Amino acid sequence: MNKETYDLIIIGGGPAGLTAGIYAQRAGIKTILLEKELPGGQVNEAPTIENYPGFQTISGMDLGNKMKEHALSFDLPIESQGVQSLKVDGDIKIVKTDVAELKAKTVIISTGAKPKRLDIKGEQKFLGRGVSYCGTCDGPFFKDKVVAAIGGGDRSLKEALFLANITKKVYLIHRRDEFRGENINVERLKKKDNVEFILSTVVEEIKGDVKVNALNLKDIKKGITKDLPVEGTFIFVGVVPRNEFIETDKDEHGFLITKPNLETSMSGVFAAGDCRSKTWRQVATAVGEGAQSLASVEDYLHNLS
Amino acid sequence: MNKETYDLIIIGGGPAGLTAGIYAQRAGIKTILLEKELPGGQVNEAPTIENYPGFQTISGMDLGNKMKEHALSFDLPIESQGVQSLKVDGDIKIVKTDVAELKAKTVIISTGAKPKRLDIKGEQKFLGRGVSYCGTCDGPFFKDKVVAAIGGGDRSLKEALFLANITKKVYLIHRRDEFRGENINVERLKKKDNVEFILSTVVEEIKGDVKVNALNLKDIKKGITKDLPVEGTFIFVGVVPRNEFIETDKDEHGFLITKPNLETSMSGVFAAGDCRSKTWRQVATAVGEGAQSLASVEDYLHNLS
Repeated sequence: MNKETYDLIIIGGGPAGLTAGIYAQRAGIKTILLEKELPGGQVNEAPTIENYPGFQTISGMDLGNKMKEHALSFDLPIESQGVQSLKVDGDIKIVKTDVAELKAKTVIISTGAKPKRLDIKGEQKFLGRGVSYCGTCDGPFFKDKVVAAIGGGDRSLKEALFLANITKKVYLIHRRDEFRGENINVERLKKKDNVEFILSTVVEEIKGDVKVNALNLKDIKKGITKDLPVEGTFIFVGVVPRNEFIETDKDEHGFLITKPNLETSMSGVFAAGDCRSKTWRQVATAVGEGAQSLASVEDYLHNLS
Repeated sequence: MNKETYDLIIIGGGPAGLTAGIYAQRAGIKTILLEKELPGGQVNEAPTIENYPGFQTISGMDLGNKMKEHALSFDLPIESQGVQSLKVDGDIKIVKTDVAELKAKTVIISTGAKPKRLDIKGEQKFLGRGVSYCGTCDGPFFKDKVVAAIGGGDRSLKEALFLANITKKVYLIHRRDEFRGENINVERLKKKDNVEFILSTVVEEIKGDVKVNALNLKDIKKGITKDLPVEGTFIFVGVVPRNEFIETDKDEHGFLITKPNLETSMSGVFAAGDCRSKTWRQVATAVGEGAQSLASVEDYLHNLS
C-alpha cells in the first residue's frame, strides 16, 4: 500500500460522520471526511432540536456547527468533495470524487437522507414555522394545537399516532382513498377521538402569515377546493437516501443494509446514521452509530495488521 | 389496569436512561425513572469527556447534570429508589423497590456498569489524575506519554493496542504469566515497538504527588518489589453490571442479552446502555440506545392498544 492510502474515508459530514471522525482522530487512525455540502448535514435544517441529550434547546445550525468544531478540534481533515463512486480492489477501497481518486482500507458511509418535499407553495416559506418533516422531533412544539399529517405510508401512520398523543387534533391527509401503511396502524388511528382522516385529497398550498394557519385542500374525486385551518403541518411523503454511488445491498428504498456491527455487504465498508436501512432516524441514534461504526473499523484494521 | 400503572418504568438514570426519559416525555408516555444514586450515573465519575459530540471538553459531572436537567425540563419524574426485583404478571411488569411496588406496561433497564477496582493505595486518590478505567475515553490525554495498562483479558489487550497507537510507551502488566484474551491480540501487541509485557506481576501501589508518577510492582514469582515510572495507568480488570434484580437472559458476565430492537428475553422489557451485553460502552452509544429503546417501547405500547 502506498503512502496515500488512508486508514478510513468517511463519506458524509452529519452527526454520524462527524462522530466517527472524532473517534477516529482520538484513536490515531489516518482519516479524511468528505462532505460536499455543509458539515452538520440535515441537522442544519432543523430550526430547533430539543432531544439531543445535553442541549435542552438548540438550533440545528448551532448543533451542526458545534459537532463540526468538535471534529476540527481533533484536526479531522474535512474536505469539500462529492463522491461519484466507491469500488473495492482487494483490501483497498477506491473512492472517486469530483476532484480526486482516494484510497483507503476502510470506509464509513454516513450520507444521511432527505425527506421528500411536496413542492407546493408555502412549504419552503413556512419551514420551521409550522412546516415539519419529523413528528418525533417537532411534534412537542404543537402540544394542544391542531395539526395536519400528510402521507399514506407506514411512517405517516406512526407519526400521526405519535402526534395524536400530544396534540389537540390531527387531520391525516392522503391523496389516495386507501393507506399504504399497515392496517393495524390505521385501526389504531380510527380509535383515536382526535384523529380525522381526509382521503382522496391533495394539499395544494400551505397558507399563513408569520406561521402556518391553513392548508388549501383539493378533493381529487369531487374536484372541490377548500381551506382547512391548522396550526402545523407534518409532511411524511417519503425519505430518500443518497447512496447511488455505492453498489451494495440496499433495501427497496435504497437504504444500506448492515450487519449488527454496521458493516455493509461490502467487506470493510460500514454505514452509520440515516443512510442505513432502519426505522428510527434521530441525531441521538446517528451519534451512537457513528461511535459504533468506528469500533468496527478499529476491529477491521486490527484484523488486517 | 389501575390508575397507577405506568406506561414505562426506566431503571437507572445514566445517559441511556435519561435519553429514554427525554424521548418518553416528549411522546406523552406516562413514565417514571428510578435511580438510587446520582442521576448521570457512571458519567459523573469521568473527570473529562472529550468524545460526546457537541461538547469539545466537559467534566463528567457537568455532562451528567446537563442530561438530568434536560430530562427535568420535560418534567420527567425521577425518584430515588433502589430496585429489588422485576417480575412479570401477564402484560404487567411489577417493579419492587426499597420503598414501593410499582406497575408498568414496559420497562427499560439502563442500570449501567462499573469498572472493577484494584483496591490498592493511590487508586482512588489519583482517579482522573493519571488513573483511568477507559483507554478510548482518556488515552488521548496521554499522547506521547508513558503509561501502564493493567489486566489480562481481551478488553485489556484491545485497550493496550489502542493506547500503543497514541502514547509513547505502554507497559502491559498482568498478574499471571499468560493472558486470558485472544492470542491474536497478544501477537499484535508483540509486534508493537512501544509495548512491553510485564507478567506474573501485581501492582501494589499507585504513587505520585499531584499526578501519578510511578507504580510499585511486585514480581510474584521472584517476590521482588520495584518502582516503575509511568505518567498514567489504565486499569482493565473487568466491568460488572448491576442486573442482579432481573431474571432474564444474560451473558457469562451478567450483562443483558438483547434483540436488535433492544428487547430482552422478557417481553416488554428493554435494555439500553452499558448494562447490555456488548463490547463498546460509550456515552454516545448509550444515548443512541436510549433513543432506540424508546422507539421499541412505543411500538410495544401501540401493539398493546
